[in-house]
Amino acid sequence: MGLFSKEIGSMDDLFIHQLQDIYYAEKRIVGALPDMITKATSPELKSAFEAHLGQTKNHVKRVEQVFQMHGAEPKQVDCPAIDGIIEEADEVGGEIEDKNVLDAALIASAQAVEHYEMTRYGTLIAWAKTLGRADCAQVLQQNLAEEKAADEKLTTLAENEVNRAAA
Amino acid sequence: MGLFSKEIGSMDDLFIHQLQDIYYAEKRIVGALPDMITKATSPELKSAFEAHLGQTKNHVKRVEQVFQMHGAEPKQVDCPAIDGIIEEADEVGGEIEDKNVLDAALIASAQAVEHYEMTRYGTLIAWAKTLGRADCAQVLQQNLAEEKAADEKLTTLAENEVNRAAA
Repeated sequence: MGLFSKEIGSMDDLFIHQLQDIYYAEKRIVGALPDMITKATSPELKSAFEAHLGQTKNHVKRVEQVFQMHGAEPKQVDCPAIDGIIEEADEVGGEIEDKNVLDAALIASAQAVEHYEMTRYGTLIAWAKTLGRADCAQVLQQNLAEEKAADEKLTTLAENEVNRAAA
Repeated sequence: MGLFSKEIGSMDDLFIHQLQDIYYAEKRIVGALPDMITKATSPELKSAFEAHLGQTKNHVKRVEQVFQMHGAEPKQVDCPAIDGIIEEADEVGGEIEDKNVLDAALIASAQAVEHYEMTRYGTLIAWAKTLGRADCAQVLQQNLAEEKAADEKLTTLAENEVNRAAA
């Protein structure tokens, strides 16, 4: 970074920066999900996390595809937001002995992750459209739709099963 | 914390822990918004942040009310998630010179904050209902509704004005 220049000079730079941020986040989530699968007790929750791990690996590929469509190298930037969300998930999980209460906490942590991704994809899609890249927006929209569906699935699982078992 | 005990033993403990987390987060946001108001250039964005600062101060009071309804002292726990989200907002903002691009980035950061609060209030409301505390859920629902409305207002502002000015 030059002495009198700033890194992000245009909407295009901002779009790429945000793409690097979600690229880091998706890879971080691929790394975090196996531990959540191990910790989960409810078979339905375990299987929901397993399914989402498969989806998340695919999200990484779609983000790489958008980098390529946009003529940029796939690169990560540090994302203190997802680091903080996952750090908090680990901390809370470490304080819980009861398996049913832990399942409820795991769902809450996973939904915090989903919401982070939903806001970032929402922003990226809006910026892609502003930049005249409806094609990039369309690929990112597939990730957003899967994050929303995963979040709704967790809400249903919490309300119909996990929270009642934990109460 | 005892050598063989964990801090969170029940759903009630988990609910209180999550309430302490959002209490910290709301107070942190009250501290962060004045800087975002200063940085914003669009008069509509400045005024949206100002309105949300007023709402956020009210959210702190509603969370204190829920502590009291639940017979607990209002207390904060560290929330690495909101710390990370705000740290990332500061970092990205510091890299941008162009005022219109900065406005677009400020909206994205604010929406990441809103989404964090939306997921936490959604969880707290579900847990309050599980614990038979529809009265607590009803108070928390007011905060959730205002976070959702604030998020939608920012989406409209981004799409109708700020992103176009920045592109």
